[in-house]
Amino acid sequence: MSHRCAILAAMVSMDTLVSLCKRRGFVFQSSEIYGGTGSCWDYGPLGVELKGNIKRVWWRDFVQRRPDMVGIDASILMHPMVWKASGHLDHFTDPMVDCRECKLRFRADQVDALPWTHYCPATKGNKFTIPAGEPCGHCGARRTLCPDCGKGELTTPRQFNLMFKTFMGPVEEDAAVTYLRPETAQAMFVNFENVLQSMRLKLPFGIAQTGRSFRNEITPGNFIFRTREFEQMEIEYFVNPHDRVEGRPADEYWHDRWIEDCLAWFRRYGLRDENLRLREHERDELSHYSKRTVDIDYRFPIGWSELMGIANRTDFDLKQHAKASGKSLSYFDEERKEHVVPYVVEPAAGVDRALLAFLADAYLEEEVRGEKRIVLRFHPELAPVKVAVLPLLKKREDIVRTAHAIRDDLARHWRAVYDDTAAIGRLYRRQDEVGTPYCVTVDVQTVGDTDKGERADGKVTIRDRDSMEQIRVPESRLGAVFGELLGGQSWADVAARVGRA
Amino acid sequence: MSHRCAILAAMVSMDTLVSLCKRRGFVFQSSEIYGGTGSCWDYGPLGVELKGNIKRVWWRDFVQRRPDMVGIDASILMHPMVWKASGHLDHFTDPMVDCRECKLRFRADQVDALPWTHYCPATKGNKFTIPAGEPCGHCGARRTLCPDCGKGELTTPRQFNLMFKTFMGPVEEDAAVTYLRPETAQAMFVNFENVLQSMRLKLPFGIAQTGRSFRNEITPGNFIFRTREFEQMEIEYFVNPHDRVEGRPADEYWHDRWIEDCLAWFRRYGLRDENLRLREHERDELSHYSKRTVDIDYRFPIGWSELMGIANRTDFDLKQHAKASGKSLSYFDEERKEHVVPYVVEPAAGVDRALLAFLADAYLEEEVRGEKRIVLRFHPELAPVKVAVLPLLKKREDIVRTAHAIRDDLARHWRAVYDDTAAIGRLYRRQDEVGTPYCVTVDVQTVGDTDKGERADGKVTIRDRDSMEQIRVPESRLGAVFGELLGGQSWADVAARVGRA
Repeated sequence: MSHRCAILAAMVSMDTLVSLCKRRGFVFQSSEIYGGTGSCWDYGPLGVELKGNIKRVWWRDFVQRRPDMVGIDASILMHPMVWKASGHLDHFTDPMVDCRECKLRFRADQVDALPWTHYCPATKGNKFTIPAGEPCGHCGARRTLCPDCGKGELTTPRQFNLMFKTFMGPVEEDAAVTYLRPETAQAMFVNFENVLQSMRLKLPFGIAQTGRSFRNEITPGNFIFRTREFEQMEIEYFVNPHDRVEGRPADEYWHDRWIEDCLAWFRRYGLRDENLRLREHERDELSHYSKRTVDIDYRFPIGWSELMGIANRTDFDLKQHAKASGKSLSYFDEERKEHVVPYVVEPAAGVDRALLAFLADAYLEEEVRGEKRIVLRFHPELAPVKVAVLPLLKKREDIVRTAHAIRDDLARHWRAVYDDTAAIGRLYRRQDEVGTPYCVTVDVQTVGDTDKGERADGKVTIRDRDSMEQIRVPESRLGAVFGELLGGQSWADVAARVGRA
Repeated sequence: MSHRCAILAAMVSMDTLVSLCKRRGFVFQSSEIYGGTGSCWDYGPLGVELKGNIKRVWWRDFVQRRPDMVGIDASILMHPMVWKASGHLDHFTDPMVDCRECKLRFRADQVDALPWTHYCPATKGNKFTIPAGEPCGHCGARRTLCPDCGKGELTTPRQFNLMFKTFMGPVEEDAAVTYLRPETAQAMFVNFENVLQSMRLKLPFGIAQTGRSFRNEITPGNFIFRTREFEQMEIEYFVNPHDRVEGRPADEYWHDRWIEDCLAWFRRYGLRDENLRLREHERDELSHYSKRTVDIDYRFPIGWSELMGIANRTDFDLKQHAKASGKSLSYFDEERKEHVVPYVVEPAAGVDRALLAFLADAYLEEEVRGEKRIVLRFHPELAPVKVAVLPLLKKREDIVRTAHAIRDDLARHWRAVYDDTAAIGRLYRRQDEVGTPYCVTVDVQTVGDTDKGERADGKVTIRDRDSMEQIRVPESRLGAVFGELLGGQSWADVAARVGRA
């Protein structure tokens, strides 16, 4: 690839991504014209396509193609008993302390990590801001009061529930309290019996769901990495704990299988090996319901952090809901003639985090013929726009008309755009920057030039984003060629067959 | 179609649909094991596919294929100022009255339509329940007190806001009050400038969004017709009010175009003409922001009701948000060299209502050879399952293996299922009842019978749901044949070409 002089940036900063996302219509701050909303983000025209593609491909690979998976789509507002039984009402909390003076609230486990305000008695009460964890340089005191106002005592820690609370029905009374779901998982458990019966399923099988969840995080942040409103892609995979597969308990076997499958999935759609790692939860870190949990970590711009987790939740949830509801949530094993409460393996991913990872990993700055090029090397299945159709001469009405017609035709099957608002070099750069894998250009040769006596050859140029190579194909063959290119065949194979331009 | 003896039911009742939906995994009551949640429903394995197909086809037809449309996906929790500026905080209300005794709350405009409790002085205070609107037969009194307890006076009506309220951040104080969006529309207005700039759009253009909205309805009901949590498919189409199209103001022209396009869309995917009508809003019925609104009504099992509305919202919303935010929300017209606030045409549809309409319209009971058949005649693009692969002999391992392999192969492209838990007639009926357009059967001829010296012919049978006709095709041709059948070609055309079995 002789055109590539140098890769300018191997790792993208969060600021660069946030800026690109806003400028090119991937992600906007929610309610930005009103100063924004605490940690909520809106997906713009390209972001909604990228996010939709991630969800679509995930659903296709993990639900549609597998014979052992079905999906559901449950409501966000569920019965409060769901959260009582699941333990969220009692245990989904952070410890908080309040300042008795200024009433500010802090996470108890984070208050020591804040710089603190100090009115120093050794300097006639002068006010200082002292770095976190350090004593006053004048009087040697350490922080005991509110780190913000420096005056009030802090209360003893109290547990603050992270679920968003609302009221269903016209009266704001205790009986009407409802919560926005903090995870989609519980819907799969409370619908277990309905799904099992209506679909005549046999173990092992899984239920998948994508959808919004809400957590009233005290310290959200890092762009779309940790937000109060977020989207999940969760699977609850039910197995018979009495079964053995390859000599091991079925739940342990399937746990490992799902870890492999999820890791392979992120690799297949573009995340590089060196940015992925598995992290086994330590014993004291495990949730109360978990027998074993493994995270897939990704090297985000903020450092290694959780991309998704795969937990063995055992029979905890089904048993909790059976006890709380008085309904039997079990499976009848025809061979053993016994009722059994399935174990559950839970691969749980965040859509927003997956999007951030795909975006970060796709980002590349390189120097091409002395100029900087920013390119998002999205997998074609994830790219928000598949093809951009660009007229080489905006003034030639026949070229413009042909380009529009090609876009309309391609758009029957794929997201395709038309752009004529700059010179061709600039148009290419714009498409590179949003990760469009292919551009089609229509030029004078395509439509011919009667003034000069040049006949139309009916061919257009396809340019590949990553190699910047070009091939020339008849307009009538475009659908077939893109069927190949966007259906999984490599540029190299297709270009070799067609012949590079 | 000689096999069809009679159509048994032309119109399906809501009870029949609710029952079918639960039994076959379309829709379950939310949190059913805990007695359900007020008017919330969960989509089951087939419901999630049907709903997903409706949204996918809508997005493809109205966003992907059009050059003048883009999408967004905004957060549900928006800045409270959005709802102040839009008018929802002050005006999105129902008038409510409370009983001073029993504290029960009623919608003021519906209280007269309830049966009422009366302690009749003419019969020594005996308690009667009297039909709505009627006087007591003994003393002639009319209702003045609480219709439920019959004792308390009702307060004067107060406005009750229909938005769900919650608190963002750790403190439940006024400053933290946030609302669950009651419509997706406002996100398109507050993101107008970001979308316009990042996508370099020119008027007219539209922004589309699908997503959940929440309304704390006092009287939800009728299955998924009116629910407190629901999903919308909304478009805000921005036009230059100074432009004229075909001799008319652009907003009026586009309003009519969108009414036509939406109506055509519902027809194309299966709703019958006789179940659709347009209804023009009367002057006194128009929302305060609307110049003109036309509903597309559908003849639901509960009678003619709104399926979607198409409103001309004028420049009301953009002007409101510009005023409240201090930001300019306008468009610069290059030709006229002037800033203009666009008018907005809003085609707003409910996903759940669309699903209910497609379900009701697809439902058919007919008599076939003396037996009742229930069939959902879904458009193939909407059908939750596209192909069911059925082995004719469950005991023949080679037939079963072949059937599984066919399912796996088809499932790469389409939702396909395998079923062997009943005899073939019953399996067909099951698939008819959930609207699967095609079944593939694998029989002895397909795989051959070495014991009898019969050679495999490698052909399988495809059965059409609606005509119940069958064709026999080589297994290797299945992908191509379903590419045609599920890509828009009619059964009649394909069957004529292949030759009926």
